[in-house]
Amino acid sequence: MSEPASEFDLIARIRGRAARHGRADVVLGIGDDAAVLQLPAGMQLAVATDTLNAGVHFPLDTAPADIGWKALAVNLSDLAAMGAQPAWCTLALSLPAPDVAWLDLFLGGFFELADAHHVALIGGDTTRGPLSICITAHGGIPARQALRRSGAQPGDDVWVSGTLGDAAGALRQWQAGDRIDARLRTRLDRPIARIDVGLALHGVANACIDISDGLLADLGHLCTASGVAAELELAALPASAALRAAFDGDALRELQACGGDDYELCFSVPAAARAAVEQIARSTGVPIVRIGRIVAGQGVRALRADGAVWASPRTGYRHFA
Amino acid sequence: MSEPASEFDLIARIRGRAARHGRADVVLGIGDDAAVLQLPAGMQLAVATDTLNAGVHFPLDTAPADIGWKALAVNLSDLAAMGAQPAWCTLALSLPAPDVAWLDLFLGGFFELADAHHVALIGGDTTRGPLSICITAHGGIPARQALRRSGAQPGDDVWVSGTLGDAAGALRQWQAGDRIDARLRTRLDRPIARIDVGLALHGVANACIDISDGLLADLGHLCTASGVAAELELAALPASAALRAAFDGDALRELQACGGDDYELCFSVPAAARAAVEQIARSTGVPIVRIGRIVAGQGVRALRADGAVWASPRTGYRHFA
Repeated sequence: MSEPASEFDLIARIRGRAARHGRADVVLGIGDDAAVLQLPAGMQLAVATDTLNAGVHFPLDTAPADIGWKALAVNLSDLAAMGAQPAWCTLALSLPAPDVAWLDLFLGGFFELADAHHVALIGGDTTRGPLSICITAHGGIPARQALRRSGAQPGDDVWVSGTLGDAAGALRQWQAGDRIDARLRTRLDRPIARIDVGLALHGVANACIDISDGLLADLGHLCTASGVAAELELAALPASAALRAAFDGDALRELQACGGDDYELCFSVPAAARAAVEQIARSTGVPIVRIGRIVAGQGVRALRADGAVWASPRTGYRHFA
Repeated sequence: MSEPASEFDLIARIRGRAARHGRADVVLGIGDDAAVLQLPAGMQLAVATDTLNAGVHFPLDTAPADIGWKALAVNLSDLAAMGAQPAWCTLALSLPAPDVAWLDLFLGGFFELADAHHVALIGGDTTRGPLSICITAHGGIPARQALRRSGAQPGDDVWVSGTLGDAAGALRQWQAGDRIDARLRTRLDRPIARIDVGLALHGVANACIDISDGLLADLGHLCTASGVAAELELAALPASAALRAAFDGDALRELQACGGDDYELCFSVPAAARAAVEQIARSTGVPIVRIGRIVAGQGVRALRADGAVWASPRTGYRHFA
């Protein structure tokens, strides 16, 4: 299905798609040496970069549209974790060959998500190389209101959005050669960036992070940055019906606590503000559950129903491990 | 010489280097989900992204420090072509293996250039994959003063900074298996972004582009964007002593007119403003020469000394050609 094409053909195709999805604050988009953008007065700029490499960050058989969606979603998730409103992104695409049919499918998934969040594609490049997608996403944050990792206080509750372990469950089934549950596979291929939740957490959360490496690992980063510790109640971790149907016991717990690719938000909020979080769950339509508390000390302890510390088999995905 | 290391070790190393090179306008740098930046009032944001892949954009034997320098330089060159003042960048690094010794050399070259332009590294990621470097560079431009490709007018002179063809000359020697002239190799491995020239061209140049794909190709892009044509005098194209010593005749002309990786600025200026350009050459210490003129029509014609049109063997580097 692929047609011969040059780098300039591919760029023209990307540029044509991007032109249909503009924003008034894009002074100059794709087509010059750099994009020029107008940040609103009083806003600070949030910038996140993430790369997806074929075979490392997604299975080689992933549909091109899903790759396009996910490459943007993981970056929007980083903006969500800062409480930023997404605005613009760049796309650097390395392709083994100039395949227009593949590119159109990829752009279909990419722009499906970009449109949903009014994100304009403002630049990038296409190069020859093993399949790799590097996106830099930009957003705006009201000055001095960024949701940092470093503000958690002992006495805060720990909350998490959505459900945990679904993406890791799909990956586990894929690695085992089992049939992959379609609901879990969708969570692996089409993560949801919790932009609305992040925006609503201004003035509510003391600290926030998105879960890409697994809950224990990422909450650990938040605790380290804040100089605190956390205690989690294993039984409180949210699981989807699909995950519960496929896994149970320690296998289920491990996927929820240590699996990666969730792209849910984990955040700490003073115990006095529980009603505010519950209101955010109602207004955004996103389930948000309380899973533990911030305490003095260091590290993250996951507690079983009997109060004993759960021995986690691992603490997160490491690309070079 | 390489030591075993994890992704987090590499990030910690990059973060440590970045922390030594800060800027007051970095509200939050490496270490959270996204960076937070303060753009000065009245400035617009310029964003450029470029990826370098091993074996495609640089020879596999390129020194790590030179790769670090060049990956940043090609992005700063895009900012220079817009007349932007560089400020911040992200670095997405795909490495086949976590090699701390390699990383330190790479960062040495990267920060040598970053420091020279007061560019802060504010984020990025490290992933496992074939060696690839994707940098997104950010700068500031006074509102409505960006140097676009699209403003060239018939009657403008065409100017170019520095010398042309040196990097392509080194690549030609490398491809032929010849000894590579050290001066040419330096131009290939350590391009100079003409930031000062770009900044000085505000209010002087009608249009500007940086030369990455070769003079004829890039001036062609400028002419297309402006809806004009250009005539060049082949004999006026600047050549270094090193290039003249290694090549002559049509081989020399082709390297100057069609070779890539120059990262010089090519720009059009009303003929009445020649003195202003000569003053910019003096104040920046960068040679700038007049190589032709903008005329009505379309396309770029290179003229020989006898006035005949030179038949160019090719019009620029195409990654997928």
